[in-house]
Amino acid sequence: MGPFGFFFRLFVGITVVIAAYFAYKIHNLTLSAPVPHLNDAEYWGPGSASNYKENTEVKPFDISVKPELIKDLEAQLARPPILQEPLEGIGFQYGFNSKYLKDVVKYWRLNYLPKWSEREAFLKQFPHFETQIQGLRIHFIHVKPKPTKGKKVVPLLLLHGWPGSVREFYSIIPLLTKPNPKSDYVFEVIAPSLTGYGWSQGSSKTGFGAIQMAIVMRNLMLRVGHEKFLVQGGDWGSLIGSNIATLRPQNVLGYHSNLCNHRHPLSTVYHVARSWLPGVFVKEEHEDFFKTFGENLFYMMEESGYFHIQATKPDTIGTALLHNPVGLAAYILEKFSTWTNPKYRILEDGGLTKRFTMDELLDNIMIYYVTNSITTSQRLYSESFNIASFALNMDGVHVHVPTGCARFIHDLLHSTDTEVAVKFKNLIHSTYHKEGGHFAAMEVPQILYDDFVVYANKALQK
Amino acid sequence: MGPFGFFFRLFVGITVVIAAYFAYKIHNLTLSAPVPHLNDAEYWGPGSASNYKENTEVKPFDISVKPELIKDLEAQLARPPILQEPLEGIGFQYGFNSKYLKDVVKYWRLNYLPKWSEREAFLKQFPHFETQIQGLRIHFIHVKPKPTKGKKVVPLLLLHGWPGSVREFYSIIPLLTKPNPKSDYVFEVIAPSLTGYGWSQGSSKTGFGAIQMAIVMRNLMLRVGHEKFLVQGGDWGSLIGSNIATLRPQNVLGYHSNLCNHRHPLSTVYHVARSWLPGVFVKEEHEDFFKTFGENLFYMMEESGYFHIQATKPDTIGTALLHNPVGLAAYILEKFSTWTNPKYRILEDGGLTKRFTMDELLDNIMIYYVTNSITTSQRLYSESFNIASFALNMDGVHVHVPTGCARFIHDLLHSTDTEVAVKFKNLIHSTYHKEGGHFAAMEVPQILYDDFVVYANKALQK
Repeated sequence: MGPFGFFFRLFVGITVVIAAYFAYKIHNLTLSAPVPHLNDAEYWGPGSASNYKENTEVKPFDISVKPELIKDLEAQLARPPILQEPLEGIGFQYGFNSKYLKDVVKYWRLNYLPKWSEREAFLKQFPHFETQIQGLRIHFIHVKPKPTKGKKVVPLLLLHGWPGSVREFYSIIPLLTKPNPKSDYVFEVIAPSLTGYGWSQGSSKTGFGAIQMAIVMRNLMLRVGHEKFLVQGGDWGSLIGSNIATLRPQNVLGYHSNLCNHRHPLSTVYHVARSWLPGVFVKEEHEDFFKTFGENLFYMMEESGYFHIQATKPDTIGTALLHNPVGLAAYILEKFSTWTNPKYRILEDGGLTKRFTMDELLDNIMIYYVTNSITTSQRLYSESFNIASFALNMDGVHVHVPTGCARFIHDLLHSTDTEVAVKFKNLIHSTYHKEGGHFAAMEVPQILYDDFVVYANKALQK
Repeated sequence: MGPFGFFFRLFVGITVVIAAYFAYKIHNLTLSAPVPHLNDAEYWGPGSASNYKENTEVKPFDISVKPELIKDLEAQLARPPILQEPLEGIGFQYGFNSKYLKDVVKYWRLNYLPKWSEREAFLKQFPHFETQIQGLRIHFIHVKPKPTKGKKVVPLLLLHGWPGSVREFYSIIPLLTKPNPKSDYVFEVIAPSLTGYGWSQGSSKTGFGAIQMAIVMRNLMLRVGHEKFLVQGGDWGSLIGSNIATLRPQNVLGYHSNLCNHRHPLSTVYHVARSWLPGVFVKEEHEDFFKTFGENLFYMMEESGYFHIQATKPDTIGTALLHNPVGLAAYILEKFSTWTNPKYRILEDGGLTKRFTMDELLDNIMIYYVTNSITTSQRLYSESFNIASFALNMDGVHVHVPTGCARFIHDLLHSTDTEVAVKFKNLIHSTYHKEGGHFAAMEVPQILYDDFVVYANKALQK
């Protein structure tokens, strides 16, 4: 054997060792990480846990707003707005267009607030409740369907996100709770305000993120008498639903998401691969759902400033928005424009009323405003995106509950089935809707409902 | 020659080609990029440039605030503040602490505003002027020293940053404009409000960033009669000063920065290398100025949320802060806490009055508030951090004017001389101060002044 033979064999040997190492690493990545331990009774209220005795009563909750508050809001909106003119020729590319904001404020003051009692009655159409969980008052809507022969009632936890509220579900709740000839099931809906959102109390302690919230929401379902339930959500609701399915799968009949996305290293590998070779990973008819890696990165950079500040300085940005109706509306409604359709950024009115009525948009703003919950809602970012949360490696834990993934074309980002299946090992339902964006429950309730029913029929018959 | 000899020669050959390629690339990186072309007369005002005739007059400018505005502010501050309690045990880690904010608002209303006429007189102690440049009203302070025998008067452009104002220079201006036995020079100070800041009008057109602002500021110096001048600045002032030295070196006698930093690929290579081998690149006595690459990245992530939102949605965050005194104070003063010393984040009061008086901090807030300039100030981020600005490759253009770099230990980030010298080829002065942070002119005016004088003596004798 000459020296070349020796080097050749050395080369082959090293290659085999390296390949084996990567195969081992990748194999490890395909295994489930352990389910982290979380305490079902951890206390998050103010002060010491030692004197705490949980009041397990479920009480009706009155969401009425004090008339003084509406009066004060009217007075605030009546102040001549001091706004910076947009740059010439600009719509929503630099954020909320202040010219259009004047119209919104005017409508709010002169059209919306004068009919507040009607809006309030609208918000009260569903029964509202409160109960105490882990030291926190949790508010929720609870709608039980009328008993119908031949229909099985299944409990459903409906979870909203940021900057949304239970208001997002006002059109889908009636659909879910009424019998449908196409389904053997009808749903008993529990739609809570996320902890720190709307009428649900925020944590007084640090460390309460989307993982800890999953425990609270699961405890809420047990409190109202359901050991097993379905979960549906988008935005934070999707992540919290995923966390419940990860931490307490024994309680979850199925998990349906309209923002199915997670951050496992393998999913990222698939994401990059799909970006290079879309033809291999994505069906041609779905290609318009997927941006390339670069496009996605650029879009995410462009649209994630709010995320960055909320994940690092929630109390500063919260202070800027709390008790500041004009600023709050601009900050929240910018998201309802761009996340509904990124193309709306070139429009002077952000296309806001193309897909929503101004009344429903303002209902949602009102919920943030009257409950003074913007800061606590924003803290969810800082408490979920930190080293302690990442260390629990929730993305690495496999989920085996029947999972459904509904994609609405204009949503912020999408994952292929291959990417979703890295975590969700029982993906029984995967759809692509050429209409709709991030706030699907509010924007296209019928489509989301139809999608959910098809999913639920599959999940429950398993 | 056996096959091994062939492969060996092939290997050597390929290695030489690759090494030559990288040597060529690195050599190219060490060459100066071309100076981009900028139009000295570009119009940034509202509407069409065709009817514009620049009014070159320099007029005294009255910064008086209308009494109604102060009254309205008093009324706003008198509203019972609705603030979210901080999380238990938290200082400034989540942003501005709302408990302490109550104290700030109280002081503002009950101590500061009642003596507003005194504060206003203080702000008026220097002569204020305005002139029109490229369609924009530019405000500036202009202080000429008294003629003193044996002292040469040198014009100095003093540039502030965000969220600062000309108020930062009120302690250093008297030092600069008075004769000093240690110096042959005394300085004629021109301290403008940056375009869109304070009393200087913001651009009506898109595309006005820190590069375009350099042209305006250089034109201002020409307008007041100085073909050649020194520039000093921190924060944006540092970058704008660097841009003037890059674009119009013929006008710059010297450039002194208290945030010498740029983003050239070679500087980044040195930064990474320094992070691995601090002993090689940094003198032991300066090691506490430099974070590792990872620490720096983490700190920058943690502290750059404001940057991210301002660089993408300035009009949304601006709307949230405009005409919102409490939110504005929280947003701006958070920076005066953390950027003065990151350790102050654990304090409930952010250590704000350890290095500043509340009066000087509120003076600065008042300048943003009474001029309604927060949105236009924030647009500087979106207009400077975009593809069009990066395409001009300002970091790649070498600067040959005498450059000084003063480092204050608690500033956001620092670069070694090797990193600075990638762009600044005539670095004649480099210092490390174990006291002071980002707002050096305001916090340690005497140290900054002494540093500047040593630098200026060197720069001007060259």
